[in-house]
Amino acid sequence: MNAISEMLDTYPKDLGGIDKAKLTECIEACLECGQACTACADACLSEDMVAELTKCIRTNLDCSDVCATTANVLSRHTGYDANITRSILEACRTVCKACADECEQHAEMHGHCRICAEACRRCEDACAALLETL
Amino acid sequence: MNAISEMLDTYPKDLGGIDKAKLTECIEACLECGQACTACADACLSEDMVAELTKCIRTNLDCSDVCATTANVLSRHTGYDANITRSILEACRTVCKACADECEQHAEMHGHCRICAEACRRCEDACAALLETL
Amino acid sequence: MNAISEMLDTYPKDLGGIDKAKLTECIEACLECGQACTACADACLSEDMVAELTKCIRTNLDCSDVCATTANVLSRHTGYDANITRSILEACRTVCKACADECEQHAEMHGHCRICAEACRRCEDACAALLETL
Amino acid sequence: MNAISEMLDTYPKDLGGIDKAKLTECIEACLECGQACTACADACLSEDMVAELTKCIRTNLDCSDVCATTANVLSRHTGYDANITRSILEACRTVCKACADECEQHAEMHGHCRICAEACRRCEDACAALLETL
Repeated sequence: MNAISEMLDTYPKDLGGIDKAKLTECIEACLECGQACTACADACLSEDMVAELTKCIRTNLDCSDVCATTANVLSRHTGYDANITRSILEACRTVCKACADECEQHAEMHGHCRICAEACRRCEDACAALLETL
Repeated sequence: MNAISEMLDTYPKDLGGIDKAKLTECIEACLECGQACTACADACLSEDMVAELTKCIRTNLDCSDVCATTANVLSRHTGYDANITRSILEACRTVCKACADECEQHAEMHGHCRICAEACRRCEDACAALLETL
Repeated sequence: MNAISEMLDTYPKDLGGIDKAKLTECIEACLECGQACTACADACLSEDMVAELTKCIRTNLDCSDVCATTANVLSRHTGYDANITRSILEACRTVCKACADECEQHAEMHGHCRICAEACRRCEDACAALLETL
Repeated sequence: MNAISEMLDTYPKDLGGIDKAKLTECIEACLECGQACTACADACLSEDMVAELTKCIRTNLDCSDVCATTANVLSRHTGYDANITRSILEACRTVCKACADECEQHAEMHGHCRICAEACRRCEDACAALLETL
């Protein structure tokens, strides 16, 4: 995903002092986490014990949607509004934490929940790190 | 969009005391606002004075993404987590307010900005009203 | 959802002879179907017999994503490219047919599948009707 | 983005003979292209000559939406329906080609268009390669 930082480097106007490394990490973490959550919801659906994984599936689906939207908002710099960026990062941090907490409960039994929990935790941390710089 | 309330009425488990009317209104407002924002971004693109509308276009795009995600989160009830719902509603209210404020500045000159501003304000209000009940 | 047609009416350039009524209907059908599919996937998750509804849930999720994207593409008119519009409408018609067929199999037992199947069928028809005019 | 292949490896049921390497490449290409297109639309918005880039922006926005949806559909394996996968891959290949063609016209003048065109071409090729295996 080198394109993320290359797109930042070729943005034609000033980026307003944003921490490029933390921004790049956060966009990549959102994309990775969003995909892992979509895949984890689907893997849970195929488990024989799906009836015990319904809260996990639902949280995965929310997390996937919020991560995709956050990646989009963070990929835009024109007419920057810190309130928008902050509020979507707060939402993303919240849902990534909830999804990591939920998936961790099934991590020993299901490899997809373990990998997804790790992706959610990375994304939660990346959102928190970026929020601190705003 | 009668399907929104019909889907709520046929949800097989308890909805946990949520205000069905306010929830239905909020989902519909999110869908309407998201579509209006996508269309307003595109209409701004086709204005001869597009160079003066770039902040409007950007805010429209953010608002469209956040509204679509909020409509999805609000359409799920299984394994409800109030923290997730609250944080995405806060983000949606924030971006709808920003987009309404921006579009209102062009409302006299551009009909699409006037209609979009109204949709954003309705969605901001619907998010605020639903947040009060949580 | 009056905003859909109002946004079309205030688009600043020529719409290129598109059938406005069919376009408006198709955008609205996509938004309605996308929401119904998100809600139906979640309602299926809460059924005691969720293990028998996993294909339905998966098809609902695909249909929801494709309908949301199709609504966005149809809401843009600047730099129109008929190949893009046609290919996403074909994909949307295909997934709406698949989802309607799947949900209809559970329509007698689950009210949410009945309502969702109707929304999918309306959207399939709206995509087909719009495709005929392109 | 190692999580993409790790999620595939931990899927609990049979993947039905799909080419895992090509599937992984295609999901990653969709995520990369979708992000590049969102960023390119925004970078074009900040160019002084934005009025000459409106078709590019519009095509970027379509491509971003379709790529995100395609990544989601490809990340699901439960209740697989080849018709759905094929039709969304066809749409994605079509819009990636259109966006690559458009961005290439501005590639010498705008670095973001050059990088985005490359991401679109990779995604077009990855969709075509995966389609051949279905």
